[in-house]
Amino acid sequence: MLLSPRRVIQDTNKTISRILQGDLKILKQIGGYVVASGGKRIRPLFTYYLGRAYELDGKELVQLGALLEIVHAASLLHDDVIDEAEERRSLPTASKLHGNKAAVLAGDHLLSSGLKHLNSFKNPRYMDVFTDAIQALSAAELLQMQHHFDLKTNAAVHARVVDGKTAVLFRAAGALVAIMRGEKDFEHAETAMLGLEFGRFFQLRDDYLDYFDSARLKKKGLQDFTNGIVTRPLLHLLKAAGKAEQTAIKTAWIAGRKHTDLSDQKLVPRLMEKYGIAAQCSAELEDLQQQILTKLSALPGKAAREVITEEFQKILAVRAA
Amino acid sequence: MLLSPRRVIQDTNKTISRILQGDLKILKQIGGYVVASGGKRIRPLFTYYLGRAYELDGKELVQLGALLEIVHAASLLHDDVIDEAEERRSLPTASKLHGNKAAVLAGDHLLSSGLKHLNSFKNPRYMDVFTDAIQALSAAELLQMQHHFDLKTNAAVHARVVDGKTAVLFRAAGALVAIMRGEKDFEHAETAMLGLEFGRFFQLRDDYLDYFDSARLKKKGLQDFTNGIVTRPLLHLLKAAGKAEQTAIKTAWIAGRKHTDLSDQKLVPRLMEKYGIAAQCSAELEDLQQQILTKLSALPGKAAREVITEEFQKILAVRAA
Repeated sequence: MLLSPRRVIQDTNKTISRILQGDLKILKQIGGYVVASGGKRIRPLFTYYLGRAYELDGKELVQLGALLEIVHAASLLHDDVIDEAEERRSLPTASKLHGNKAAVLAGDHLLSSGLKHLNSFKNPRYMDVFTDAIQALSAAELLQMQHHFDLKTNAAVHARVVDGKTAVLFRAAGALVAIMRGEKDFEHAETAMLGLEFGRFFQLRDDYLDYFDSARLKKKGLQDFTNGIVTRPLLHLLKAAGKAEQTAIKTAWIAGRKHTDLSDQKLVPRLMEKYGIAAQCSAELEDLQQQILTKLSALPGKAAREVITEEFQKILAVRAA
Repeated sequence: MLLSPRRVIQDTNKTISRILQGDLKILKQIGGYVVASGGKRIRPLFTYYLGRAYELDGKELVQLGALLEIVHAASLLHDDVIDEAEERRSLPTASKLHGNKAAVLAGDHLLSSGLKHLNSFKNPRYMDVFTDAIQALSAAELLQMQHHFDLKTNAAVHARVVDGKTAVLFRAAGALVAIMRGEKDFEHAETAMLGLEFGRFFQLRDDYLDYFDSARLKKKGLQDFTNGIVTRPLLHLLKAAGKAEQTAIKTAWIAGRKHTDLSDQKLVPRLMEKYGIAAQCSAELEDLQQQILTKLSALPGKAAREVITEEFQKILAVRAA
């Protein structure tokens, strides 16, 4: 039997609530926040349908997907921690509502509760996948911090950040499926590589939308630029722009770091348009999307394959339908 | 063969360095800070000699002790995270030197690196002990936060904080030894209970010294009071004091919360003296110490038993020698 996406999300939420139960007021608030905030549960959905395409046990897939979501939530809680000097321009985060320390400790509690539950499977290979993923997540966030407001961040560093920050949990989903299928080299199995590409696409699409269609992210655009994070569109622009333009970009960048307003709010969008960066990025994304769709179409189970493909296209289409 | 305490510490530091290696600048700095800061390595020493008393494998004991120390260091990094409103009166912490976010992410990296190494033992019972401990640590810190500047914190809550915040890692050491000995109910084994008492003693002694002999902690006294944490001496004092005195304590407490100076710096020490709280607390500690010494004297291996007893008395004596 194949569950509907809606049902997978419900079961995932139930599993998360069960794993996170505890009697501390603060944990209830923050745990509730994590479950209620919902999100699209794209990691659990990916895990479930990918595994079901190979006719693996649905209950175990839901559990593993819920655990990936818990790691994701813990990493968001830790990522939201604010440095004293830092101003947050976005929506209130758990840090803002409960204080840095509560967010950090709640993240630790989430993580350890998740790992404890995972350990009940008594499968050290599962644990391998999770500890690798958590290590990669923190390393990627640290790497990104190390290159905060570093306009010289190169494509290789950016790729490492993307792989560690986002792709890693999708890759983990694919590795877990590979373990369930009995594959020895599960970290490099076909399903793990599919997860890696899926996750890369997910992050690169976000980076694209931040510059070119932020309405679909439900947030203000150009956040990566003003927050001092170099992503693919900016890398392309810096390569294409002339000397004087590069200097102007640098000035705007420094204004962002100093929390002063950009003197010319339209500078970056204008240059992006001049050099056709949106088209360049979306062509790249569509290539990647095509590769993923080809791999998805090769999955064995018809029903699961159809749902995963449909969800992928619905959630992750580069352009609005 | 029984290693000397000095050698156990050296081997522990080597193990920690090996586990934490990575190429990120920030990790090197913070990792170095953790190893260099040294500390007394009391958790690894306890683990090693307790296990060696049962003639367990010394190399494995050093590894497990080093992993407990890594969890301890990660928890310190997360515990040092500062809320914007909060002022730190003590020495510079990793948070202060590198920012909250770097400290949090470095803590995550430490923790995941440690768990990854632990997983290489392929013993889910070890993992049980560690995930339980990390969960208890974060829950206890959250509980303490929930009762921050809460003068009504009762003895039961305080006991839960002590057990979760400090005793848990010593209990874990004892549980790990029990697993190595092949005991099924390792969380409640004799060695785990010895660890629990040892850890309680460790924390209660700290709480005692904070009021009555802070020089031995190498820090300013009365930090728990001014930081809004209720410990055993204050619990005893509140019970003993008269109505008017209780009101005066409350006023001083509120001054601490508001970061204003205590109007009467000597009030609390004076009342502590008036009611003989130091003697009351040290009598309790000596009882607990006696219980621990009795248990230590029942350990089988003579050489290990002697070192663990000597170290316990050297490091943890209630009164300076």
